[in-house]
Amino acid sequence: MSGAERLTASEAAARLAAGTLTAEALTRDCLKRANARAAVKAWAWLDPEQALAQARAVDRAGRPGVLKGVPVGVKDVIDTVDMPTEHGSPIYRGNRPFADAACVALIRAAGGVILGKTVTTEFANRDPRETVHPHNPAHTPGGSSSGSAAAVADFQVPVGLGTQTGGSTIRPAAFCGVIGYKPSFGEFSRVGIKMQCHNLDTLGVICRSLEDIALMRGVLLAQDLQWVDRSSGAPRVGFCRTPAWDHADGDTQALLERIATRLSAAGAAVRDVALTPADILDHHRRIFEFEAARNYAYEYEAHGDQLSAALRDGLLTPGRALPLSAYVEAIEAAEAFRRNLDNLFDEFDVLLAPSAVGEAPEGLGSTGDARFNAIWTLAWTPCVTLPAGTGRKGLPLGVQLVGQRFGDEALLDTAAWVEARLG
Amino acid sequence: MSGAERLTASEAAARLAAGTLTAEALTRDCLKRANARAAVKAWAWLDPEQALAQARAVDRAGRPGVLKGVPVGVKDVIDTVDMPTEHGSPIYRGNRPFADAACVALIRAAGGVILGKTVTTEFANRDPRETVHPHNPAHTPGGSSSGSAAAVADFQVPVGLGTQTGGSTIRPAAFCGVIGYKPSFGEFSRVGIKMQCHNLDTLGVICRSLEDIALMRGVLLAQDLQWVDRSSGAPRVGFCRTPAWDHADGDTQALLERIATRLSAAGAAVRDVALTPADILDHHRRIFEFEAARNYAYEYEAHGDQLSAALRDGLLTPGRALPLSAYVEAIEAAEAFRRNLDNLFDEFDVLLAPSAVGEAPEGLGSTGDARFNAIWTLAWTPCVTLPAGTGRKGLPLGVQLVGQRFGDEALLDTAAWVEARLG
Repeated sequence: MSGAERLTASEAAARLAAGTLTAEALTRDCLKRANARAAVKAWAWLDPEQALAQARAVDRAGRPGVLKGVPVGVKDVIDTVDMPTEHGSPIYRGNRPFADAACVALIRAAGGVILGKTVTTEFANRDPRETVHPHNPAHTPGGSSSGSAAAVADFQVPVGLGTQTGGSTIRPAAFCGVIGYKPSFGEFSRVGIKMQCHNLDTLGVICRSLEDIALMRGVLLAQDLQWVDRSSGAPRVGFCRTPAWDHADGDTQALLERIATRLSAAGAAVRDVALTPADILDHHRRIFEFEAARNYAYEYEAHGDQLSAALRDGLLTPGRALPLSAYVEAIEAAEAFRRNLDNLFDEFDVLLAPSAVGEAPEGLGSTGDARFNAIWTLAWTPCVTLPAGTGRKGLPLGVQLVGQRFGDEALLDTAAWVEARLG
Repeated sequence: MSGAERLTASEAAARLAAGTLTAEALTRDCLKRANARAAVKAWAWLDPEQALAQARAVDRAGRPGVLKGVPVGVKDVIDTVDMPTEHGSPIYRGNRPFADAACVALIRAAGGVILGKTVTTEFANRDPRETVHPHNPAHTPGGSSSGSAAAVADFQVPVGLGTQTGGSTIRPAAFCGVIGYKPSFGEFSRVGIKMQCHNLDTLGVICRSLEDIALMRGVLLAQDLQWVDRSSGAPRVGFCRTPAWDHADGDTQALLERIATRLSAAGAAVRDVALTPADILDHHRRIFEFEAARNYAYEYEAHGDQLSAALRDGLLTPGRALPLSAYVEAIEAAEAFRRNLDNLFDEFDVLLAPSAVGEAPEGLGSTGDARFNAIWTLAWTPCVTLPAGTGRKGLPLGVQLVGQRFGDEALLDTAAWVEARLG
């Protein structure tokens, strides 16, 4: 029989609050699973005694907070004062931050247990590390939040922190068959998170229920919890194939068409919607290059030989050569895109879009294609990916729901409506 | 006779390039001045041997870069791998960062010498530290970039890095009688700079010539240098008293009126301009409170007893209580304000506005009022303060020029036109 590691974070929080589960027992079950499934290689740092000590402290505490002992996996680009933070890079081997990231401090203050650090690609960029797909070790789990997605999908931890600059939260969550959430840009604090692109980086959440997103929003925004409303009415859905549609494989295209039909049959007003401008991904790329090339100045100048060629020669060197005017042009195009989207949301409650081009690709040399995510990272809109069956290789597919900027709660309510009708 | 410490950064760079000055000699002159004027208390960390070792290395280097040995003072909220970074807070006593901030790495790569760390208020917020005004030790030098402004004004270093979330670069530069520059929001990398408010924080430059801003822009943006054009024509000037005008003292109001008249007489088309909405400062305050309260989560939760009451009870506790909806409202008002300004710059090349409410106030208990700066921090526009005579206490007054967002080079050209006519 399986143990408490199968509970979602909000289920666990309810049992912990009711006293029918202890933080120590829950943490122990997660650690047992992580140990049994070490072959997934989800963790960059996992010290069972350190995690259990935190859990016991929560059990002893008088005012334990809303997380009450829920274990959380923290992507290893996020600072922890008591665990190494190595950013998936040899440059930061042995780095022990002086302070917790703000998100980690808020999780601890709410009674969360930092179970360990999850594997990230090099600096949350493209060069993969050791994590494998939990359902098939010959496939990538996606990235850059590889370890958080794999660990959550594999029941090693109920919730994991990710980050997204291109597609680093939504894509691995979709590949691994769990829920991924990228909030409206700027809502969650990024203090203590290795900054890649200040106009794109977003802290995200990977978990197994929409309620867990609501729970983590309360914690990370230091606000009263606002639970998902599962009784909301049928939404107005914009079916947004996006300018990248031709890159989606047959499984994904068929899945999206099927879901659009199903939602329509269930009462949603579904209409096709096109995005403008169509060259959004070029602007995303330019902002990424320009900002990363300056934000990684220390690594590039002082430790260039320890960067992957993909990062150094593929991103930073071209980014250095990009003129400021090209960057400014991309920033202004991105702002125009956001205004267009704002207008679009007068007509729609949610946009329906692919989460990825298809299933997790075979091999560990690449974490997959981010184009269906980079659009929404640039848009600053909240996004959720929901598991939506499997593809021809038997690996999970996801479907992405995009809400209006700052309409995160409404998006979660709509996502619950959609989830109940995915079958 | 005075030595090389009186040179501006660009004058020094020219002599260094021509071989008529060495980095070691220049650094030695700056250190001598800093030592003679230690009573200004501009430095949080200054190790002469460490600075001289850097200078000698630049002198020896084959490819020394555009700064070629120019000493730079770095505000102590900016990470340096070889010097402590204590953020003006006992919480960070002894903090030795693992990496240089991106701006520091770029300065080193261009051949700059990090002379030392300059004093900051607690976390670049309001609680002052030990620096005094270089012209009158009974007065504040302004803040939060107190040490950088005082050191540059006092000829201890030609250029200093500051940051601005409210008025932390422009105000101390104006108080100390030097040039201060806040670039368009988002242009300069903030990696390795303690983040206070992600929608407001801006890295800034304090120096003694407009050419030094151009020089530092080239370095910090990793772009080819674009020098100031001192032959540009008479600008269209919007005289912008701002909604805070009534808070400016008589000296400042008279100064601004006099300058407007003088620029008009010199050929500028000067017209009054009003800002909308009028409650900009309320929105700035709300964004500041909400973001700081989450960005300082670690310090608040783990070391709250070591925060000043001004920061903890005056900012972070109220910020925690602020609902997300109030924050979102302020963000949206700020975006509307920026669009209004963009339209305004169809009619004007530059706005003329006060740099501060008046001269540097007496006493070291406060660094002064930031309201004439917070407006433009929220606006994301580039700003320059130029020295413009003295007030009734004999201390410097400044005048602020505000350019269109991303129009930084044009602003510097216009500032040169104005500077030549200030008399």
